Amino acid sequence: MKRVRMTVAYDGTDYAGWQLQPNGVSIQEVLEKALRELTGEAVRVHGASRTDAGVHALGQVAHFDTGSTVPPDRFSYALNTILPPDIRVQSSEEAPKGFHSRFWSVGKEYSYTIQNGKHENPLLRRTSWFVSGKLDTGRMREFLGKLKGTHDFKAFCASGSEAKTTVRTVDRILLKEEEDRITVTIHGNDFLYNIVRIITGTAVYTGLGKLEPDIAERMLETGDRRIGGPTAPAKGLVLLRVEHADRKPDWVLPEND
Amino acid sequence: MKRVRMTVAYDGTDYAGWQLQPNGVSIQEVLEKALRELTGEAVRVHGASRTDAGVHALGQVAHFDTGSTVPPDRFSYALNTILPPDIRVQSSEEAPKGFHSRFWSVGKEYSYTIQNGKHENPLLRRTSWFVSGKLDTGRMREFLGKLKGTHDFKAFCASGSEAKTTVRTVDRILLKEEEDRITVTIHGNDFLYNIVRIITGTAVYTGLGKLEPDIAERMLETGDRRIGGPTAPAKGLVLLRVEHADRKPDWVLPEND
Repeated sequence: MKRVRMTVAYDGTDYAGWQLQPNGVSIQEVLEKALRELTGEAVRVHGASRTDAGVHALGQVAHFDTGSTVPPDRFSYALNTILPPDIRVQSSEEAPKGFHSRFWSVGKEYSYTIQNGKHENPLLRRTSWFVSGKLDTGRMREFLGKLKGTHDFKAFCASGSEAKTTVRTVDRILLKEEEDRITVTIHGNDFLYNIVRIITGTAVYTGLGKLEPDIAERMLETGDRRIGGPTAPAKGLVLLRVEHADRKPDWVLPEND
Repeated sequence: MKRVRMTVAYDGTDYAGWQLQPNGVSIQEVLEKALRELTGEAVRVHGASRTDAGVHALGQVAHFDTGSTVPPDRFSYALNTILPPDIRVQSSEEAPKGFHSRFWSVGKEYSYTIQNGKHENPLLRRTSWFVSGKLDTGRMREFLGKLKGTHDFKAFCASGSEAKTTVRTVDRILLKEEEDRITVTIHGNDFLYNIVRIITGTAVYTGLGKLEPDIAERMLETGDRRIGGPTAPAKGLVLLRVEHADRKPDWVLPEND
């Protein structure tokens, strides 16, 4: 048996999210079926991040164990001949001993794309949130800048989260404008459930003038989700990359992502 | 009655092209149905370019006549509440007297996007052509540069075209690289049938080393379509914009686009 690590990209539009579930087809399920077809084994695939229904990925990382004779670096090519076109393995390799895509993760990066204009660009409709009112990106940048650092992000976390602590570190947060698109990129050690979508929804409200940029401090201080903006829709969110330690981290990561 | 000009964007993936036809749903048909629902009239919509099945547009221009009381600049908003999400009117306005989207056209711009890498990015799969072999963009640029100017583009025209002359002017041709994407943008006075897809397919063959960049001169000299590269697939092509004269041009444009 060997452990294989792979990087997976997907258009999440037509999936019920990463994780196996009774209602709807998940990315994990489609990968496991393709691996069974390829290897004849009942393979369990573990992903670094359990992305929600409709969320996309360019750099999800997953691992699995196999006794197959397929060389680890050929799994990407072999799986892509079986997988549907909206899921593509970007690379595969033998993983270090004991590697776990989720427990060895030390950093992740997500992007969220907003489309701003009078009318939606239909070529971007599956991968962005269309906001028709004119957004003031100066106000959005001011709001986002206040979130950098280590804070208790309780107010940016969907209720029902089982996280033991809601303290997280956001070390990079960038807003980029390009033609009719605004992209927010966030890098952190670990992500609370829905945090990027709540940050983006609140940023959009500051950009529309519905909230002041200092709502950031008030949310961080009070921990009150209700005073923030809406949760931005899933379709604008992309898991860009997952970073891993070279060996098993000797700390226990918060259990949510 | 008044004549309304509108700019239309669409994701052509699920359509049989711009023009009405017996097999499959066309963009024109969907727009005409939406206008009938909005105005109660049997409206005929005329487009500047009859884009093929699977081809996209950000700036298609179309016109129609209506006796409706809807103000011309509100048609975009009203139509977008009726249209499916893959077609969006970007703007609408009253057209100058005698305006015709096709006959008044004096310039068009198309882009063609290629994805180059080991494995396809599924988020770009509907709007680009995935080429897995490494492309030499220096060779592609050399090839494309030779096409600038006024030439007989017979070798870059699909057979069966009814164009009376195959002489055209390409005044701008650019290749842009961004991460895993290569975008070719072409501006000209008028476009032969499939010309952008044949130029791109041949450019890709020069980039792969299957053809030399001087195939450009040989194609222009001989007019022989068969010595060029393949016709690139429809899905990478986007009609970016159509430019119009301020009044009826006093020349007769070639009849194809």
